[in-house]
Amino acid sequence: LSLAEPTTAPGAQFLAEIREQPAALSRLVEHDAEIARIAAIMRDRNRRLVRMVGHGSSDNAASYGIYAFGLLPRWTAMRDSITLTVHYATPLDMSGSTVIGLSQSGRTPDVLEYVKGARAAGAFTVAITNDPSSKLARAAEATIPLAAEPERAVAATKTYVNTLAALALLAAHVAGRGSEVAEGIRRTSELVADAIPNLERATAKLALSFSYTGRMFVIGRGVEFATAREIALKLLETCRIAAEPLTATDLAHGPVAALDPLFPVWAIASHDGTLPTVQEAATRTRKMGASLVASGTAADRIKGAAFTVPVPTPEPRLLSPLVSVVPGQLFAAALARGRGLDADAPHGLAKVTLAR
Amino acid sequence: LSLAEPTTAPGAQFLAEIREQPAALSRLVEHDAEIARIAAIMRDRNRRLVRMVGHGSSDNAASYGIYAFGLLPRWTAMRDSITLTVHYATPLDMSGSTVIGLSQSGRTPDVLEYVKGARAAGAFTVAITNDPSSKLARAAEATIPLAAEPERAVAATKTYVNTLAALALLAAHVAGRGSEVAEGIRRTSELVADAIPNLERATAKLALSFSYTGRMFVIGRGVEFATAREIALKLLETCRIAAEPLTATDLAHGPVAALDPLFPVWAIASHDGTLPTVQEAATRTRKMGASLVASGTAADRIKGAAFTVPVPTPEPRLLSPLVSVVPGQLFAAALARGRGLDADAPHGLAKVTLAR
Repeated sequence: LSLAEPTTAPGAQFLAEIREQPAALSRLVEHDAEIARIAAIMRDRNRRLVRMVGHGSSDNAASYGIYAFGLLPRWTAMRDSITLTVHYATPLDMSGSTVIGLSQSGRTPDVLEYVKGARAAGAFTVAITNDPSSKLARAAEATIPLAAEPERAVAATKTYVNTLAALALLAAHVAGRGSEVAEGIRRTSELVADAIPNLERATAKLALSFSYTGRMFVIGRGVEFATAREIALKLLETCRIAAEPLTATDLAHGPVAALDPLFPVWAIASHDGTLPTVQEAATRTRKMGASLVASGTAADRIKGAAFTVPVPTPEPRLLSPLVSVVPGQLFAAALARGRGLDADAPHGLAKVTLAR
Repeated sequence: LSLAEPTTAPGAQFLAEIREQPAALSRLVEHDAEIARIAAIMRDRNRRLVRMVGHGSSDNAASYGIYAFGLLPRWTAMRDSITLTVHYATPLDMSGSTVIGLSQSGRTPDVLEYVKGARAAGAFTVAITNDPSSKLARAAEATIPLAAEPERAVAATKTYVNTLAALALLAAHVAGRGSEVAEGIRRTSELVADAIPNLERATAKLALSFSYTGRMFVIGRGVEFATAREIALKLLETCRIAAEPLTATDLAHGPVAALDPLFPVWAIASHDGTLPTVQEAATRTRKMGASLVASGTAADRIKGAAFTVPVPTPEPRLLSPLVSVVPGQLFAAALARGRGLDADAPHGLAKVTLAR
């Protein structure tokens, strides 16, 4: 008779949830019809300015939403200021806007308050949350459930990836390309499942080389800027690395001056129009003597990288960030374990952040 | 007969340009009538969605522009994606937009390309640049000259503050409050001039205490998020500190876990609706054992700060960031000098950044 509890080794939950991501993506796609109905409302009411609000990983996903809506229906999407309406009480006309409130818990106070205000100001409001019974879901006119099942590690993984997928699918339905992108997410889920074992081995080796790293830049551009932001956040919260995300181009506008051989750069390179900017940033990095990790679907196109962690290329390519974040998550898991830090419950954090 | 050259001590130019900021602000206000004419076009043509683009300090100033346009005419302003149109060649409808291209040199390649494309797509395009004969100025329909006179130190100071002022004045004219804000900028220029000697003394002492700091968060929210971004950038490029800007609230959504007694936080607190969020972030910082520097107009409202560097409060308060960035600039100047780094010409940077 076994009375064994589920494993409680430090970081076990975080790693388990990274491995659950393919299954979580498949569950999200089951909500395709609901997402299509929400997209139809956005089109019918002509709510073409998409305002996204969230914090932490949710805000990182919003960086991806800018491209999902920009590339698919060619609508303008933005990460809106919460402060302007919530803290400065500025009345804005939102009658032409769709507002998307992003919160894993559905309880982030200022996101909730923003969405309530936006609805009163005439916006069509949508909640994307892992808790469809949350206050945020009740405050919004429509809800997309993340369907990631409970996420217990404090650092988000599967809810982040499902938020990307939800935004891509919503934007795709607005553009009349829902079935193509739904099918793409299903195939991407399989790609990720197949890639994880090799990525676990590759990132464990990588973690050994960066055991003592205290500072890092993570660079990406376009759709992969969200990935850069999310990898940097995982390194900050689980490994206590001062990891800062930058667009490939912003690196050159000042921050490159801080680099040295003990200040490495992680570059995410994808097969798209931004690749030359990432290659140029990699050259600048090498000139400063900093070591370089190259990941992403075009990792092998970055010359002189000390480490290369390629990932498979999904179709449509807009879905690359669903794959390219995984090496960063696994690296964070391995490095936290190596440093004796508990990635499941980092010091100073709680799963539901109720900061104002 | 003196044949002495202007001083060429490392960092002398950077410090001189910080001290020139009050004079530079006064020169900008002389262009009030031109700015009023541009605002009138924005109103007459009803170009109410304001898309700002820039890199580095110019992009930091755009973070302020969101509040200038949001608080004064209550228009929506955003830091737009350059990648979407320039690198992904996505055609967007810009007929309802004003586009503001921000570049000190007027030569930033992708900003120039974005503005050209936006003009072709129907946007009303405005350049804000220190070189009114630059390619950017020629590409845009209208130009606001920064009138900062040549800026020679690589790290921007007076052009940053004048970009803030230009955005505030443009937004004020759109709102029919141009003369109030023009007068506010004139008075703010005097406030800054009066405050600089004391701030130089205070920040020199501060630099001594942070001689060996390698990592730092700089936090602010609302109008002061631009200040947090700009101070962090000065510390990165002139002092080689891995300084990351965060909103006061985003600190709680992960990054706080990285803090320890050798990882300090610089908090910018202003007398406005965001003060409670900065106070809460300060409490979280202290709980992690990290030391805290409080600056801004409400610096004395932050409890338990190891160092407090208050600045005078301008009217209207929207102009606070024109003052609150100065302690950060002076701290960077003092710390770079103490570390033997040349703030005028950091390794790896050029004054005109031609990165793609």
